[in-house]
Amino acid sequence: MENTINEQTTRQVMTPEQFLEQYQGHRRLTRRVIEAFPEKEFFNYSIGGMRPFAEMTKELFAIAVPGLTEIVSGKTVEFDEHRDYGSTKADFLKKWDQDTEEINKLWSQISIERFQEEIKLFGQYEGTVLSSIQYFVDNEIHHRAQGYVYLRALDIEPPFFYDRS
Amino acid sequence: MENTINEQTTRQVMTPEQFLEQYQGHRRLTRRVIEAFPEKEFFNYSIGGMRPFAEMTKELFAIAVPGLTEIVSGKTVEFDEHRDYGSTKADFLKKWDQDTEEINKLWSQISIERFQEEIKLFGQYEGTVLSSIQYFVDNEIHHRAQGYVYLRALDIEPPFFYDRS
Repeated sequence: MENTINEQTTRQVMTPEQFLEQYQGHRRLTRRVIEAFPEKEFFNYSIGGMRPFAEMTKELFAIAVPGLTEIVSGKTVEFDEHRDYGSTKADFLKKWDQDTEEINKLWSQISIERFQEEIKLFGQYEGTVLSSIQYFVDNEIHHRAQGYVYLRALDIEPPFFYDRS
Repeated sequence: MENTINEQTTRQVMTPEQFLEQYQGHRRLTRRVIEAFPEKEFFNYSIGGMRPFAEMTKELFAIAVPGLTEIVSGKTVEFDEHRDYGSTKADFLKKWDQDTEEINKLWSQISIERFQEEIKLFGQYEGTVLSSIQYFVDNEIHHRAQGYVYLRALDIEPPFFYDRS
């Protein structure tokens, strides 16, 4: 039995634990980007008609825990990126940390067989559990990088991209 | 034998083919971002002291094929993001397409067991083959998203993030 498990592990491109660590490592970096913004600019600053970083963060909130909740429960969850999380950076960071714990709890309920299962997330986005969660991560990297440009334009040094500690 | 292979496939979070498709899907999107830039702004436009998108593209060139070449050969390759790829968008797009083919060829030479192997890429970056290649992808998403902000600031509609066709 132990040999079988070891063999499975070494033959995998990625284990569920590695996937979770990749996601949470990116989330730790995004948290530092939120922290790096001045209070006012987090909610108001924008380039080229794009959303302020607080609005992008609301999108990330709308995806992570609601998406994983749907994957675990099998029940369609509404995608709503306009929920109210308060009006201060501290409010957003508190919610961020609550979600970190919630993501870990939900992840532990996804069995390895399910990653290749076809789903229709938020009632509309078709893909596998794998491609759906990978989209969560990629989308977070994408919007966070836009936050990096905002910070640079505000003459603020963003956190190192490679630091996921 | 067939059953064993099927079982391995369904028990994996991600197959090597899915990982390659994720990477090439992102590369197809990055190619469209390069195409979306006006010729001059691709080489000159910048926000907040950041590099023009052509310079970021040079970094992507310095990572993808050289990194995979090192992974396949086991021989340390120099990281050099200042190589000359020409002075027009067409030059860069031609190199991009050559790399697309080269990446496919190199990928086919990485056996599934190797993804969990510890390496020291470009003689300095420690990680597994998996985490190294995942970094290539994440880094590309990160810089491409900065290109999105440049395009928005130039009043140009960027390609849809979710379109990887």
